[in-house]
Amino acid sequence: MSISYNIGILGATGAVGEELLTVLAERDFPVKSLRLFASERSAGTSLSWQDQQIKVEDIEKADLNGIQLAFFSAGGEASKRYAGRFLEVGAVIIDNTSAFRMEAAVPLVVPEVNPEALEQHRGLIANPNCSTIQLMAPLKALHQVAGLKRVVASTYQSSSGAGRKGMDELRDQVIKVLRFEDPNTKVFPRRLAFDVIPQIGSFEDSGDTNEEEKMINESRKILSLPELKVSTTCVRVPTFIGHCVSLNVELEQGFTMDEINQALEHAEGVLLCTDNEWPSTVDVVGQDDVWVGRLRRDRSVDNGVNLWVAADNLRKGAATNAIQIAECLIQKDLVQVKLS
Amino acid sequence: MSISYNIGILGATGAVGEELLTVLAERDFPVKSLRLFASERSAGTSLSWQDQQIKVEDIEKADLNGIQLAFFSAGGEASKRYAGRFLEVGAVIIDNTSAFRMEAAVPLVVPEVNPEALEQHRGLIANPNCSTIQLMAPLKALHQVAGLKRVVASTYQSSSGAGRKGMDELRDQVIKVLRFEDPNTKVFPRRLAFDVIPQIGSFEDSGDTNEEEKMINESRKILSLPELKVSTTCVRVPTFIGHCVSLNVELEQGFTMDEINQALEHAEGVLLCTDNEWPSTVDVVGQDDVWVGRLRRDRSVDNGVNLWVAADNLRKGAATNAIQIAECLIQKDLVQVKLS
Repeated sequence: MSISYNIGILGATGAVGEELLTVLAERDFPVKSLRLFASERSAGTSLSWQDQQIKVEDIEKADLNGIQLAFFSAGGEASKRYAGRFLEVGAVIIDNTSAFRMEAAVPLVVPEVNPEALEQHRGLIANPNCSTIQLMAPLKALHQVAGLKRVVASTYQSSSGAGRKGMDELRDQVIKVLRFEDPNTKVFPRRLAFDVIPQIGSFEDSGDTNEEEKMINESRKILSLPELKVSTTCVRVPTFIGHCVSLNVELEQGFTMDEINQALEHAEGVLLCTDNEWPSTVDVVGQDDVWVGRLRRDRSVDNGVNLWVAADNLRKGAATNAIQIAECLIQKDLVQVKLS
Repeated sequence: MSISYNIGILGATGAVGEELLTVLAERDFPVKSLRLFASERSAGTSLSWQDQQIKVEDIEKADLNGIQLAFFSAGGEASKRYAGRFLEVGAVIIDNTSAFRMEAAVPLVVPEVNPEALEQHRGLIANPNCSTIQLMAPLKALHQVAGLKRVVASTYQSSSGAGRKGMDELRDQVIKVLRFEDPNTKVFPRRLAFDVIPQIGSFEDSGDTNEEEKMINESRKILSLPELKVSTTCVRVPTFIGHCVSLNVELEQGFTMDEINQALEHAEGVLLCTDNEWPSTVDVVGQDDVWVGRLRRDRSVDNGVNLWVAADNLRKGAATNAIQIAECLIQKDLVQVKLS
């Protein structure tokens, strides 16, 4: 008889929350009970999951006793506010926000890349930023061939990176532009319809945005390469779901393209497109793998390689990776808080 | 009394042709007479220019005598086919296609960057690729500060890079997608609406596309840096007019960001956005300058800098640059073919 778990989802009504419900069902996750939480504003509605209608509970009033595994996807503020109450009842939290990612005691995990980091968890595990997640398995494969030296990434990130309200704003803007009306701008700093926005998040002192700094810092932590040289430019493009990244990588040692090809072909969670094929967002929507294409040697530098990486930011970039972390915890018998 | 010229435009009915007409008028170009040419299919229609209606002539049947300056923008095949007839009548050709760009005897010119190349022309001058043009003035400014070592560029190119039919296809696709209908795909290799396409042109043996190779080879020729190390990834995004480029540059020597800022502020044809401001396509449509933003040091490499470059691909990337070449020829008294 296999064990199943009492699950809670905080932020169940958002774009990632919805995807969590889908992926839990798809992967036949061992759910004993499923409870959904949201702010008072969204509480009271019901969501259907498999053959059940589940009422969304007001997180402020909910009794959390019995919850063993919690997925958080309600924004960094909510994660900080409610983590303590979940930890008190002994739940293990997998947090999709940036609230705790860079805390030394919090494992930041992509299961194909650094599952061993889970072993030291103290109840709180962080799911990385969507753009970061999708680069980790390809970069680890390259690292194993010849050592990572430097990574330069430019992203093409979809509107759903800002949640359902981001997708809604893009669609509404597109319709207005086609009608020669003035589009509204609330979610994004400027109009996204038929334009690109080279600013995701706010600016840090370095001149990088916080999204760009996340990619740098989280990559170093996940790959256990604290000195890894990374430069990122994060750009929002008018797509709905699916992030793409143009990736230029310098490796430490020489390699053959055959070695690189084979490493990526065998990398878990990676789907390599060959013969000049490439993925775009339509290929990866609804998929759990990270797709890699446009793989070619970069002759502008010693040991250089260019590649194009696409993934579903709501799935592998968020919900799927979170649930893969949970599966990994179960497999390692770690769905419990060690009090050491 | 200032001199004026008999002008011809081949490909007058296209997106760049239309922009040539606009820019000629805007800049008060010294036009004595203006004749418009196109293939038999487009001939016979009339285009209005200032207070005239000008009939588009069938290029196959036209008598070209008297034309002094010709702008070509009807595709590489047409350029190759008709260049001889224009040269025979003594016209100087400014060709917007890739037909002759890499020929040693053909100057490839961005007037703010290498006007001196015009002095050796033999009747045929090439206008560079749109994505290349917009990088040249910023890169030359950086080169003058500390020497260019290596350039890594990822582009965000609009549908008008494929002409008016590209813009039409994007608009039609967007409408169909919003109606849940299947969009048609003829101009682009896949659906562009709400997606990105990391392939512009066809693939070369290197794994780069011909668009990517153009950027590499043309940059080297324009900057007179035949060994310059350049890596490019060219991506079509669902915008109408305006190309953007995420640019990572390594320089040979050390520099202060103040020096870089000042060089870009004073670079002719460059508009520098400061204080974390950045341009996107809406800023540059209808503009002749190249806009630079997101300027910041790249700490992942010695002497590195990141920047974001946006320009109107139909104007500075095509029509404006072509007319600036013509203005430069006039200024240098070079609107004539030296037979040496």
